[in-house]
Amino acid sequence: MRAIVIDQPGGPEALQLKEVPDPVAGPGELVIRIDAAGVNRADIMQRLGFYPPPAGAPPYPGLECGGTVAAVGQQVAGWGPGDQVCALLAGGGYAEQVAVPAVQVLPVPAGLSATEAAALPEVACTVYANVFMRAGLAAGQTLLVHGGASGIGTMAIQLARAFGARVACTAGSADKLDRCLELGADLAINYRDEDFVAAVTEFTDGRGADVILDIMGAAYLPRNIEALATGGRLEVIGLQGGGRGELDLGLLMRKRATVQSASLRARPVQEKGAVVAAVHEHVWPLIETGQIRAVVDTIVPLADASRAHRLMEESGHVGKILLDAGRAG
Amino acid sequence: MRAIVIDQPGGPEALQLKEVPDPVAGPGELVIRIDAAGVNRADIMQRLGFYPPPAGAPPYPGLECGGTVAAVGQQVAGWGPGDQVCALLAGGGYAEQVAVPAVQVLPVPAGLSATEAAALPEVACTVYANVFMRAGLAAGQTLLVHGGASGIGTMAIQLARAFGARVACTAGSADKLDRCLELGADLAINYRDEDFVAAVTEFTDGRGADVILDIMGAAYLPRNIEALATGGRLEVIGLQGGGRGELDLGLLMRKRATVQSASLRARPVQEKGAVVAAVHEHVWPLIETGQIRAVVDTIVPLADASRAHRLMEESGHVGKILLDAGRAG
Repeated sequence: MRAIVIDQPGGPEALQLKEVPDPVAGPGELVIRIDAAGVNRADIMQRLGFYPPPAGAPPYPGLECGGTVAAVGQQVAGWGPGDQVCALLAGGGYAEQVAVPAVQVLPVPAGLSATEAAALPEVACTVYANVFMRAGLAAGQTLLVHGGASGIGTMAIQLARAFGARVACTAGSADKLDRCLELGADLAINYRDEDFVAAVTEFTDGRGADVILDIMGAAYLPRNIEALATGGRLEVIGLQGGGRGELDLGLLMRKRATVQSASLRARPVQEKGAVVAAVHEHVWPLIETGQIRAVVDTIVPLADASRAHRLMEESGHVGKILLDAGRAG
Repeated sequence: MRAIVIDQPGGPEALQLKEVPDPVAGPGELVIRIDAAGVNRADIMQRLGFYPPPAGAPPYPGLECGGTVAAVGQQVAGWGPGDQVCALLAGGGYAEQVAVPAVQVLPVPAGLSATEAAALPEVACTVYANVFMRAGLAAGQTLLVHGGASGIGTMAIQLARAFGARVACTAGSADKLDRCLELGADLAINYRDEDFVAAVTEFTDGRGADVILDIMGAAYLPRNIEALATGGRLEVIGLQGGGRGELDLGLLMRKRATVQSASLRARPVQEKGAVVAAVHEHVWPLIETGQIRAVVDTIVPLADASRAHRLMEESGHVGKILLDAGRAG
């Protein structure tokens, strides 16, 4: 098969389509023939050499895909060749085929193509695991999402609204703010000329946000703690503003608040499987009824993966950028 | 009645025994005639003017007491005059009487005096709320307790052991380390000449501590994160080493770890009541069977509260320092 190989870490041009060995379905695994793969910021970190794949994962980038089951390994029940699926991957989505543990595989939701479904696994699992399973966002509480127009952001806005929470978000352009409001955000804050702490504090009548989903890390740490409500939970899933920041433990104590950070990718297969099962139970029905939709910005041929990375680095997109493996050549 | 009054924040001499109005039992409250009150570091902060009592709390210091019910307010069921009790207070323990919401009151455990029981409410509730209710320490996991010989520390060591966890702790003298081991600690680390990160890492075969109960705040923040296991929870309940520290979010993310901080005192009465009820259910039986004991270092007459604060500031004690209100004069 062909896959995107990174021989030398570097700029987008480091992504090269090459012929590589076909994957094999080990025990408990499926091989998926990929229609499309989602592009995530973590892939850029991997391209730059800062985020090596975990042990046992394919060396190619790509944390999610949609496609068709091509082969089934031993000890796999419930799936067979030809099934339309999408999957959360530890790597290897930028390819024509990938092997993945069956517990990380979901059916393509009714009404969607396998290509559209490729936009879902990483964002749905990341948002559900952090905002709901870990932070326990409840109906009537307020979620603040940074980067509301990103793939993660567009899913977080829709999911939180569907579960009865109020949603504030930040974004960097008028167009992105409009799109966030269309998706259901109650408040969209332009971080370029508004103070999100003041805006969220006013929006919540002084209470603050019960949960914050953050991608900026150190750069936003002090202000995120300020913006939290009593008992609030800050979930850091990205470090675009650096990793080392000042934490005011006195303020954290007065607010009885929590700071947590996690990535999905490094978790053991069993934990990923628990997240995927919860997403299947709680999120998939909302997608199948149309209450939540996959927001796709651009679909780029797999061979042009470098262009997809440039688009993501320019940050002009709203929702997901996908790679189409069906147009690999 | 008489109580310890702080007219001007300052050194231990700021604590003055004076005649003050008797407390009255409001709806849902009891008045307790106090035999003894526990001394806590938070009382020193209040004496220095850094930790004012929350709205509605008595102005006198003291977060826990043991004694006898003297009066019962409206809407209180299950308690009557003469009952031997101890209580978690929002303030007012350094006195001959105190009014307290009935949900914060516990019976004196069988086999203990009301004076001994005064050593229990704050430490039992703080440890149970943070280590078990919040951090979810489970049997087989490892707890690291800083200040193992303190009131909090001696309770945390015993409780964690009773629930089947392994316990490492730090302390600053050979005598304190011995006492921690006697109470059931599996590992006692002298923080003056050992690196607790290396010691805990070795003790856990490289895994790290699942839960850390910390009183040092900023001074220990970077090393506490280093000492955490994957999925670990750092619970900061004291800021003796400062409030603002550097947090390595990248390391937090790789460990999928949590930093939380809270004090009991500022919580709403309802939340305190939930903690007290859980302590009554899960901790009291262990005290009544003798599996866990109240560790009392020194009992000082209430009139000598300033001496009790000096003893705590010198940090030579193991377990609790109590004030005896029966010997107030």
